[in-house]
Amino acid sequence: LKGVLLAAGLGTRMGNLNIPKGLLKVGGREIVYRTIYYLRKFGINEFVVVVNEFSEEWYKKFFDRLGIRAVFVLNRHPERGNGYSLYLARTEVNENFVLFMSDHIYSEEFIEKALNGQGLVVDRIGKFVEEKEATKVKVNNARVEKIGKDLTDYDFFDTGFFVLTPEIFKFAEEVVKNKSEGEITLSEIIETAKVPVHEVSGEFWMDVDTQEELKRANCEVVKQSVKDSEDGIVSKYLNRKISTRISCYLVDKITPNQATLLTFLIGILSGLVAFFNVPLGGVIYQVSSAVDGIDGEIARSSLRTSKLGGYLDSVLDRFVDAFFLIALSVHLPGSVLSSVLTGLSIFGSVMVSYTTERYKGAFGESPFKSIPALKFFPGKRDERVFVIMLFCLLDKVFELFVFLAILTNLKVIYNLVLIYLKKSKEGGESGG
Amino acid sequence: LKGVLLAAGLGTRMGNLNIPKGLLKVGGREIVYRTIYYLRKFGINEFVVVVNEFSEEWYKKFFDRLGIRAVFVLNRHPERGNGYSLYLARTEVNENFVLFMSDHIYSEEFIEKALNGQGLVVDRIGKFVEEKEATKVKVNNARVEKIGKDLTDYDFFDTGFFVLTPEIFKFAEEVVKNKSEGEITLSEIIETAKVPVHEVSGEFWMDVDTQEELKRANCEVVKQSVKDSEDGIVSKYLNRKISTRISCYLVDKITPNQATLLTFLIGILSGLVAFFNVPLGGVIYQVSSAVDGIDGEIARSSLRTSKLGGYLDSVLDRFVDAFFLIALSVHLPGSVLSSVLTGLSIFGSVMVSYTTERYKGAFGESPFKSIPALKFFPGKRDERVFVIMLFCLLDKVFELFVFLAILTNLKVIYNLVLIYLKKSKEGGESGG
Repeated sequence: LKGVLLAAGLGTRMGNLNIPKGLLKVGGREIVYRTIYYLRKFGINEFVVVVNEFSEEWYKKFFDRLGIRAVFVLNRHPERGNGYSLYLARTEVNENFVLFMSDHIYSEEFIEKALNGQGLVVDRIGKFVEEKEATKVKVNNARVEKIGKDLTDYDFFDTGFFVLTPEIFKFAEEVVKNKSEGEITLSEIIETAKVPVHEVSGEFWMDVDTQEELKRANCEVVKQSVKDSEDGIVSKYLNRKISTRISCYLVDKITPNQATLLTFLIGILSGLVAFFNVPLGGVIYQVSSAVDGIDGEIARSSLRTSKLGGYLDSVLDRFVDAFFLIALSVHLPGSVLSSVLTGLSIFGSVMVSYTTERYKGAFGESPFKSIPALKFFPGKRDERVFVIMLFCLLDKVFELFVFLAILTNLKVIYNLVLIYLKKSKEGGESGG
Repeated sequence: LKGVLLAAGLGTRMGNLNIPKGLLKVGGREIVYRTIYYLRKFGINEFVVVVNEFSEEWYKKFFDRLGIRAVFVLNRHPERGNGYSLYLARTEVNENFVLFMSDHIYSEEFIEKALNGQGLVVDRIGKFVEEKEATKVKVNNARVEKIGKDLTDYDFFDTGFFVLTPEIFKFAEEVVKNKSEGEITLSEIIETAKVPVHEVSGEFWMDVDTQEELKRANCEVVKQSVKDSEDGIVSKYLNRKISTRISCYLVDKITPNQATLLTFLIGILSGLVAFFNVPLGGVIYQVSSAVDGIDGEIARSSLRTSKLGGYLDSVLDRFVDAFFLIALSVHLPGSVLSSVLTGLSIFGSVMVSYTTERYKGAFGESPFKSIPALKFFPGKRDERVFVIMLFCLLDKVFELFVFLAILTNLKVIYNLVLIYLKKSKEGGESGG
């Protein structure tokens, strides 16, 4: 399978751009980068790119930088439309191919499912689509009957993503022959060919035509990036609301590692403040927890996740937690009991994470996926931080340490027992 | 490749046995189990077993229990020797085969290397061999010239392990035809056939002929099991000397999990004692560290390692460490500084392990193998425990906590920096 990218459009609705539309960044990456990234993930490594005189140099540099093989086809008449661009690509494509636009973004799941079918990929739900602006599709006998923005009787939305056979070029040639001047839309060719439709409904994809949609796409990509997170309850209903808003602003501006450093510093700041002012320290601690997701969100949105990033994030969280508790412990009465409580609280806090992280190292799988019951006992970091803030607001430091010393260690034992039960039942000796 | 096991010998030198020699346990597993376990690991799954009237039932049950396919050949005249046993196996073997004895144990490395060659596997060094008792081999032109216990001019030791072609049966038939009565040794046939030799020198293998050798084999297997451990310096020169001696006694008596529980309880005991008596607590703590390796040694010796075992061992170590320090913290002056020191010490102690364990989870590799420099900064558990004991013996609890608070956290930062440098250099973004 080859990939054919139509990138000769003029993008007039974007206002004055000094860069081709497909190279605008959404979620920290060029629009076309995202699609190409996922296509490559699913084995498509050769591309044909139809460009216009303005976008040619831009795309050549872009593909060069990525080190991806691409053949460029110049459309000297971009005003003749994307159907004409497809027509021009015919000399470079002899096999089945994926046809995609430079102004659409898709999620990985969308592309995975789209590649499982043939024809025009359509979406019945159009979750992220403005109905008024969307291109609609009327289907007959599982084939395209009509396409257009103004259809009132329609079955699907057009996702702008196709899996086609070279047969389509015959129809393109026919349409071009009959119409030697004026715009030829892709829709015309698709309608003429009556290509089959392949339904992929409800997955994330967006058409980015205006500055406004660009902004919205940015935030949608960030939101999509937290979809599969194993969040605790505070994270889900509070922290993520905050962090995704910030991420959607920052995603084009800083790297994931910079975000890690930033949130780490806020965490350390919360500890420093807690030395002097417990309630304020607690609030900043909760703030640091609320923004703690930003690095991951930016990393996933911009397709820049790294194992090192995940590692650092997790280790630095432990530092922040311990530093904050040690700072708080200064407000405990100077007594043996205080030392014991501090020791227990810090131990329990780190060990909650240790039991699950060590699990990944030992068994090579996510503990929360293989043992969902681990989630039932609260005590994840987001929850812990939130409760710590509440105690701090009430200035109940001693009570907090009693609470933590008990709760975190119970959680650790709970984790251990569940893991032991699960894994000893699975049995399985492995020599070596 | 098939496996042919000669298990019709009478094992007279063992004294009176009520069980076939090959089913005696060494390192917690039957002698032949070990060989079969490794052979299967390298893809040999079908076995032919030559038994005598006594051993037949035993071996049938044994293979049944393991669920391994085996064909049994009955030798009604075991007194006619192992050459005769090989001769009897001829009807069941048409392909190349591995020939092995029921009274030899081999390491995994030995078997892996042995399978890479052809003929009689010989060892020039005979590290674990008593020269007087060993069978020697004189070689000419890379083929067996002479085999015997009494050779004075010899090149190799006979390891009792062969990789043979079915050709050997022609020679076996010839020898048997010429000698219709009396003992026929395997050596006679091998000599007659002038089979090639394949050198595998210096790896662990042993011939187990007497009760004494059985005992020695037990301990050797345990010692072999710690060969690749990533031990700290105290472990290497002190703890392992103690633990392997105990393991070689216990390996046939308790399971790895029972050993884990036992050493955990000694660790907890050390904490309980430390509440009342610091020096004694410290000594018991070091004892618990010295015996901490037993579960792993027993698990590896008896081919019973499990991921769960490794997981529990590592988590329970953290519990013991924290419990011991919390117990000790009771002897600190009741002050804010004490709370802080306790918090820092416990945090650092757990985090030394966290940084490396989390590494395994993130990168799926041993941190000590990919970043050897991690070992240069002391602070592994065995070293930490030993130093803690020294402080305890001097009753310097406050000094100990100052020392730990600094040392462990420096070690954590050292680990982090090394890991960051290594991994950020490797670069490599990975999407998803």
